[in-house]
Amino acid sequence: MQPLRAQIESIVANALAEDLGGGDVTTEALIPPALQGKASIMAKASGVLAGMEVMRMVFQKLDPSLRVNLLVQDGARLKPGEVVATIEGNVSNILKGERVALNFLQRLSGIASETARYVEAISGYAARILDTRKTTPGLRALEKYAVRVGGGHNHRYNLSDGILIKDNHLAGLRSQGLSLKDIVLRAQQSAPHSLKIEIEVSTLAEALEAVDAGTDIILLDNMSVEEMRAVVAKVKGRVLIEASGGITLDNVQPIAEAGVNLISVGRLTHSAKALDIGLELESPFSATT
Amino acid sequence: MQPLRAQIESIVANALAEDLGGGDVTTEALIPPALQGKASIMAKASGVLAGMEVMRMVFQKLDPSLRVNLLVQDGARLKPGEVVATIEGNVSNILKGERVALNFLQRLSGIASETARYVEAISGYAARILDTRKTTPGLRALEKYAVRVGGGHNHRYNLSDGILIKDNHLAGLRSQGLSLKDIVLRAQQSAPHSLKIEIEVSTLAEALEAVDAGTDIILLDNMSVEEMRAVVAKVKGRVLIEASGGITLDNVQPIAEAGVNLISVGRLTHSAKALDIGLELESPFSATT
Amino acid sequence: MQPLRAQIESIVANALAEDLGGGDVTTEALIPPALQGKASIMAKASGVLAGMEVMRMVFQKLDPSLRVNLLVQDGARLKPGEVVATIEGNVSNILKGERVALNFLQRLSGIASETARYVEAISGYAARILDTRKTTPGLRALEKYAVRVGGGHNHRYNLSDGILIKDNHLAGLRSQGLSLKDIVLRAQQSAPHSLKIEIEVSTLAEALEAVDAGTDIILLDNMSVEEMRAVVAKVKGRVLIEASGGITLDNVQPIAEAGVNLISVGRLTHSAKALDIGLELESPFSATT
Amino acid sequence: MQPLRAQIESIVANALAEDLGGGDVTTEALIPPALQGKASIMAKASGVLAGMEVMRMVFQKLDPSLRVNLLVQDGARLKPGEVVATIEGNVSNILKGERVALNFLQRLSGIASETARYVEAISGYAARILDTRKTTPGLRALEKYAVRVGGGHNHRYNLSDGILIKDNHLAGLRSQGLSLKDIVLRAQQSAPHSLKIEIEVSTLAEALEAVDAGTDIILLDNMSVEEMRAVVAKVKGRVLIEASGGITLDNVQPIAEAGVNLISVGRLTHSAKALDIGLELESPFSATT
Amino acid sequence: MQPLRAQIESIVANALAEDLGGGDVTTEALIPPALQGKASIMAKASGVLAGMEVMRMVFQKLDPSLRVNLLVQDGARLKPGEVVATIEGNVSNILKGERVALNFLQRLSGIASETARYVEAISGYAARILDTRKTTPGLRALEKYAVRVGGGHNHRYNLSDGILIKDNHLAGLRSQGLSLKDIVLRAQQSAPHSLKIEIEVSTLAEALEAVDAGTDIILLDNMSVEEMRAVVAKVKGRVLIEASGGITLDNVQPIAEAGVNLISVGRLTHSAKALDIGLELESPFSATT
Amino acid sequence: MQPLRAQIESIVANALAEDLGGGDVTTEALIPPALQGKASIMAKASGVLAGMEVMRMVFQKLDPSLRVNLLVQDGARLKPGEVVATIEGNVSNILKGERVALNFLQRLSGIASETARYVEAISGYAARILDTRKTTPGLRALEKYAVRVGGGHNHRYNLSDGILIKDNHLAGLRSQGLSLKDIVLRAQQSAPHSLKIEIEVSTLAEALEAVDAGTDIILLDNMSVEEMRAVVAKVKGRVLIEASGGITLDNVQPIAEAGVNLISVGRLTHSAKALDIGLELESPFSATT
Repeated sequence: MQPLRAQIESIVANALAEDLGGGDVTTEALIPPALQGKASIMAKASGVLAGMEVMRMVFQKLDPSLRVNLLVQDGARLKPGEVVATIEGNVSNILKGERVALNFLQRLSGIASETARYVEAISGYAARILDTRKTTPGLRALEKYAVRVGGGHNHRYNLSDGILIKDNHLAGLRSQGLSLKDIVLRAQQSAPHSLKIEIEVSTLAEALEAVDAGTDIILLDNMSVEEMRAVVAKVKGRVLIEASGGITLDNVQPIAEAGVNLISVGRLTHSAKALDIGLELESPFSATT
Repeated sequence: MQPLRAQIESIVANALAEDLGGGDVTTEALIPPALQGKASIMAKASGVLAGMEVMRMVFQKLDPSLRVNLLVQDGARLKPGEVVATIEGNVSNILKGERVALNFLQRLSGIASETARYVEAISGYAARILDTRKTTPGLRALEKYAVRVGGGHNHRYNLSDGILIKDNHLAGLRSQGLSLKDIVLRAQQSAPHSLKIEIEVSTLAEALEAVDAGTDIILLDNMSVEEMRAVVAKVKGRVLIEASGGITLDNVQPIAEAGVNLISVGRLTHSAKALDIGLELESPFSATT
Repeated sequence: MQPLRAQIESIVANALAEDLGGGDVTTEALIPPALQGKASIMAKASGVLAGMEVMRMVFQKLDPSLRVNLLVQDGARLKPGEVVATIEGNVSNILKGERVALNFLQRLSGIASETARYVEAISGYAARILDTRKTTPGLRALEKYAVRVGGGHNHRYNLSDGILIKDNHLAGLRSQGLSLKDIVLRAQQSAPHSLKIEIEVSTLAEALEAVDAGTDIILLDNMSVEEMRAVVAKVKGRVLIEASGGITLDNVQPIAEAGVNLISVGRLTHSAKALDIGLELESPFSATT
Repeated sequence: MQPLRAQIESIVANALAEDLGGGDVTTEALIPPALQGKASIMAKASGVLAGMEVMRMVFQKLDPSLRVNLLVQDGARLKPGEVVATIEGNVSNILKGERVALNFLQRLSGIASETARYVEAISGYAARILDTRKTTPGLRALEKYAVRVGGGHNHRYNLSDGILIKDNHLAGLRSQGLSLKDIVLRAQQSAPHSLKIEIEVSTLAEALEAVDAGTDIILLDNMSVEEMRAVVAKVKGRVLIEASGGITLDNVQPIAEAGVNLISVGRLTHSAKALDIGLELESPFSATT
Repeated sequence: MQPLRAQIESIVANALAEDLGGGDVTTEALIPPALQGKASIMAKASGVLAGMEVMRMVFQKLDPSLRVNLLVQDGARLKPGEVVATIEGNVSNILKGERVALNFLQRLSGIASETARYVEAISGYAARILDTRKTTPGLRALEKYAVRVGGGHNHRYNLSDGILIKDNHLAGLRSQGLSLKDIVLRAQQSAPHSLKIEIEVSTLAEALEAVDAGTDIILLDNMSVEEMRAVVAKVKGRVLIEASGGITLDNVQPIAEAGVNLISVGRLTHSAKALDIGLELESPFSATT
Repeated sequence: MQPLRAQIESIVANALAEDLGGGDVTTEALIPPALQGKASIMAKASGVLAGMEVMRMVFQKLDPSLRVNLLVQDGARLKPGEVVATIEGNVSNILKGERVALNFLQRLSGIASETARYVEAISGYAARILDTRKTTPGLRALEKYAVRVGGGHNHRYNLSDGILIKDNHLAGLRSQGLSLKDIVLRAQQSAPHSLKIEIEVSTLAEALEAVDAGTDIILLDNMSVEEMRAVVAKVKGRVLIEASGGITLDNVQPIAEAGVNLISVGRLTHSAKALDIGLELESPFSATT
């Protein structure tokens, strides 16, 4: 369930280079190079933890001799004050990695926590909470992983693993006189056979036209809950139905109740707040290696 | 004021690879390869625009023949419905770049907009709004740029361009019996001469001890506004004073009023919401190149 | 239909670095640096052309002032002696790029040509010729593109854009006492909703069990043509049927005739022969820039 | 005799990224993350094994805790059914690495096997079988290694480690009125002293002119065996003689018999067939880490 | 005090690729692959050692099983003949790494040694010896580290961690009618608060104008020792004073004596001579692994 | 004669990233973003110019709209005060590229100038001045190019394009009881046929033994001029002779006079001094784009 190790390594190396530049002038000026110590990583707010392996890799890239001890795993429900990991070893290197490790942990836990709130809000309904491609450039693998940790499911990873015919495709195609049926047929003929075909619709009529055209999934764009209910009633399970656009914690429950199968939420990734997590050095330290 | 071109190029290339994977199966299945058209990028909410050059580079990396026309510049105050740019050329390539371009534009504009709210909240006071190192891994240069676009100032870029002695450094140093004076002296002796020395304090007494020790800046960590006022009164302009920790739009104005010089706000970057910006294809299209 | 430009650029830059090492000692020793000339790229065998944009990029990476003139496009049926492109400009740089340009062109055209032979062998039948993931490490985007140029279709691009439950998955799952039905159900519950579920079967009984379990596609592994016919007859179009394993130009026609929908052929990419294509400098040259 | 470790690491990391994209959706949906097991890598055809270290690195990059046990070494003559390695550990990670590991092993063993056929075909003669620069872009180091494993020798690695004056160089130079003697002299004056000078000739007369001009090696381009014999007879060992162009398993023996020193064969690398090698998971598995 | 591990790894991998190209043809042709042995790295001249961790990483990147034993640490004063490290293990891999390891060690030790000569020349004075940004492209982190090893201090690492207003800035600004006071004010208003402001001056009058304008540091460009003395006398410790331009071992002592705080020396990095250090294989070797 | 464009691009991009970090805080604080101007690059010492294309690429990477006008070419003999190029356009970007551009130009011109001194010192003799592999890690292609610009020749580029059997190889091989004849024979049998075989010798006896063994080149290691003369007299032109070790401007002329063919000089690259070259902005500037 973890992203590819080599991929994380590259992201982490890049982040460390970005934060260290020519070196940590404060730590190098002040902390004795051989000083040993122990630090705790601690939740300062409630939420769902995600990113522990990334955090571990930050410290191990900096200094393979640091001992990172994970006390809980990704997916754990955190309370403020809970210690999630300890790091032991060279104090300078712990300090150099602190910010980068926390930046990953806070962001990924923020996404997992936000996802969990949506999942919880529709508990008891059959619908899945989905992410979107509205992720941070460069961090998609990690952010989509965090969504899974929070109990959500992933929509397509990128443009190559899902046929999603959106408004802008339709605008282009309709200007050439193609019907929804023509469009779905063309997709079936040209696209990889392993991918389902999903098409965006904005009215009940379009929804039914798309179903008749043979699509596998319909995406209801910014419909009212009433319209969604009507679509669900008419489609009768022939295809999967995804609700999308403007979904928040305030309206997600009635949408799930309307009977859609999938609810995609851009703000899981594009607007999640960081979860507050900190690192604290314990004292006293032993002065030698 | 723009980040380094080659740096953006690398970030953009990476983001495109991430989003395109083996190719855009939908567009390739449906859109005639030679189809030409025009798209508009449009604000769907109010805010401050940032990231236009990055957006332009997304499309130009995909297809150097696309014509990207910027109608307003970074820093513009947007109203919903305002068109900020048009892109003309090959429709398939416009569609392939849409999501990546918007991901950058939405995030950076979100940060600029949030920064502008803080700057506005303290307008009339001398204090600067500062960012922190709590940025998205891999995007620091862009995010710090967005803060500047929003009217904020940048705190140090990374660990190599500022001496900031924080609680974890102090914990380590005090366990060795060093006073604040010893610590500041050690920093002066070892650190690059071009960098000011900033030290974190949490009480008035510590603040004054640090000033006497010869520090250039003090960082007041999570102090109440009253405490800040007391520090300002006693320090009397001898050093710069930075307020940090738990600062929100609700409390930033009284903090500025207390007379501090600098107010650093982690949530400018770690928890900013994306600004809603969309891309719309116009129809009809001309069918040929 | 072309792979991502930035992706090709990176592959091409890598290939040039590999072939040039510290420089082209022969050309640098012999050819006057300012010598201008013209070269032709010419087919020396019959086949389907693929890779013209990659070839063009090789020369343009080496020297942006070279003029590469494409006389035919990818997909053209070539006869021996046919000139497909000319390159004009600095002779030294034409010579430095020759081998790399031809290596790409020969390999991609070899794949397109081999694919075209399979497509032709089943012309008149509804089945698609598919590639596999048995591609050359690092060149998948280009090789899958060449398959499309040759008239084939692409199977999943990589492990993230298709659910394909193969023998080794089944071995692992059955050892835990799961039935095919259990397995398909688990896949439906966990996997991205946009992907169809394909499962490998090796007998008629398994095929029918998989169809009843709700799979979207069945992969017939190394079945005889008779067995395939039986499966087609019983499945009656409820799911897509893919034939795989040991497929050659000798047996592909009867397999298509058996009525399967998809025929995947590893040797399109893992064992294709290069198409013979050469580069010839014309003389005389003009001596100046 | 192995290529540079860091170089392989980079090729392997790239190949894994290419094949895993956003993750292995099938394995992640189905296989319990902690499931342990053992797999065997097995030859399914006869040939010469090459690429074991690359295969090992694929699994270790994915998961350093996998135990890869090599039962035979590169260069071994394989029979169908022979197990060449076992991998023990996390089943999900074994499955994720399977295809990439086999893609390397099949291609490199294919090249080693084809080379071995040529070497065997001329056993008893003094000539060396050589590869060319007609290798797969990005894999030259590995493919040239596979040639050595098969008993062949390497021609120059790239343009910087051999002076080879080919037809296109000659066309350019002769148009300036230079004789072969002038050309060889110019090469001797300008080129690195550590490299021998080789020149392509297509007639006996040219061959002797080149030898008199002081070249170190002559390359006979597409000559008949009779012509080669004549050249060998006249050159009398004064320089090395390489046969090149159109060499196949059918004509390589008489060419070696003609007495040339070197026989270069492009199809060793540009058209080698993959050697069939598979991976099989054993069951039952233990269910825990 | 060491540069970032991942950064060195990348520099080392690049250097190895550069020096190994397609492989070490000499060693591979001659040395039995399993041959074991031991080598010593030995100073052949007097100087200050720097670069031991880089050297160690060269050998470990090539072959993690090599045992590199450091006998002394960076900063040690070397005498000719002193053995600084031994390497034990596979002889082929020791030979392949020899040149790259020594290239790093010789250059970094050369810089440390040259720095130490300057530091020694001003011993007893308060001034610091500083490096500049005149470093070798790609090696700045290592070269600035070597300066520290030699007892020097680092000037700003790059353009982002120091405000240094130089002649070319001043030329541009003065043409717009700005006074030094205007310029310093603008810098204070716009630049990061954590950075001191340094300004280049070339006369006593300018120096005093800059001090009055509120700058933190003045850089005396190519002043005579007499002029420096005058500046020191007038400035009276209000700001730091840096001497720069044309500083050599011949004139550094009187400059320090003049009372400046900082002396920056470009030739520490742009013109340092390599320190002569060699590697010698011991014999006999054991013939087996 | 220029190194590979893509290779330089990568080195330049890396150097710019290294020097710009998070941005040029001085220029961004002070210089109006739209300010236009013109700068001159000027020699401040006598020497041979090298690196103009690299310098041009620095500015063009930063800002493609800068106009870089080369007034003289690489290889020109410079006098102090001579303007070698002008750059026109955005002043901020000129200032940002200044140091990196000069760092390349100064180092490469330093190497070319030092090489030219050696070449001049032996003018009239047949010997070539050669570089070595003692180059700066990461810059070999550029530094070897600078040697050629200065009139020198290149020794092998890296370990893969020359057989050079050195003392450490011999130590390893002799411990196994091999004679020089055995060693040369083994090299002939195993190594690429396109490479000459060079072997290091330290006495006349060894030199003659190596010649008799069939080596192509002998390297005289640290021999006296008298010994070299004796070797030359006995070898009588049968092989090339290279002098190496401890060669300086003081002793290079008698060595050339002794009649060796090749003289390799490590200090051309490992200890060359930068040539002093500066950049000056002209004023006044036009204030607008």
